[in-house]
Amino acid sequence: MAIEIERKFLLNNQHWREQVSRSTRIAQGYLNAEPSRTVRVRVKGDSGFITIKGKNEGISRVEFEYEIPAADALELLKLCPNVLDKTRHLVNIDGHTFEIDEFHGLNNGLIVAEIELASENASYPQPDWLGPEVSGDVRYYNSALSEKPFSSW
Amino acid sequence: MAIEIERKFLLNNQHWREQVSRSTRIAQGYLNAEPSRTVRVRVKGDSGFITIKGKNEGISRVEFEYEIPAADALELLKLCPNVLDKTRHLVNIDGHTFEIDEFHGLNNGLIVAEIELASENASYPQPDWLGPEVSGDVRYYNSALSEKPFSSW
Repeated sequence: MAIEIERKFLLNNQHWREQVSRSTRIAQGYLNAEPSRTVRVRVKGDSGFITIKGKNEGISRVEFEYEIPAADALELLKLCPNVLDKTRHLVNIDGHTFEIDEFHGLNNGLIVAEIELASENASYPQPDWLGPEVSGDVRYYNSALSEKPFSSW
Repeated sequence: MAIEIERKFLLNNQHWREQVSRSTRIAQGYLNAEPSRTVRVRVKGDSGFITIKGKNEGISRVEFEYEIPAADALELLKLCPNVLDKTRHLVNIDGHTFEIDEFHGLNNGLIVAEIELASENASYPQPDWLGPEVSGDVRYYNSALSEKPFSSW
């Protein structure tokens, strides 16, 4: 088990694109999209994962992640009602990594940046492209985006 | 991925108890109890498992099972709304194994026997204690028993 502490932001501009170190396509779906016991299936490059997350307490959440064969993950995605398609871009700044998710399909046009922190009060870099924080806004949960995509807002 | 083909039966009498080769206590809960994408967490002796099952087609069902640390499984059970407690007894007859589940707690009094088959039409032993088949009866799904236990029928 791990405790996931992360902040999520919208983006002010496209300057982050010049700082991307790596980009990976991700397909993910939810065997359960309930925030209190989310079960996510993900195919990321050649790897598959199943991830269970508990209820949010502030910006923290218990998380269990298991690597599984990518072929299994592809089969499991077929059991999920909706599948999210996104490209994850990594931007490293001062020893921190921003994960910037650029969504495709029904969530096209949505781009969010996430940063994992060691504690709820930890400081983090604030580049000019980092926009308003949306950590507490459930609409931006990936599980919510699979059910109510950005294009339907 | 595996395809699980199994038949489930009630029991006519207690004669099966004389043939038990092994008994194991099992605790299990559901991160999703929907039959179309069941996500089960199980602690069986010293082992933990997460198992995903798809929708039933007749008596067949796709199944994916992953072993996980028992400590994780115990934490994951805390995310499940209801936890089933049962003792699984194994009875071997003519190269087949019956798994006989004796439920405790809110399902106390319920005992069912399951047998896995290689094909939907495969023959199987029919000892005198094997009662009426309930394979298609959703009330006997373990996921259903976690939500509507036997004592509430």
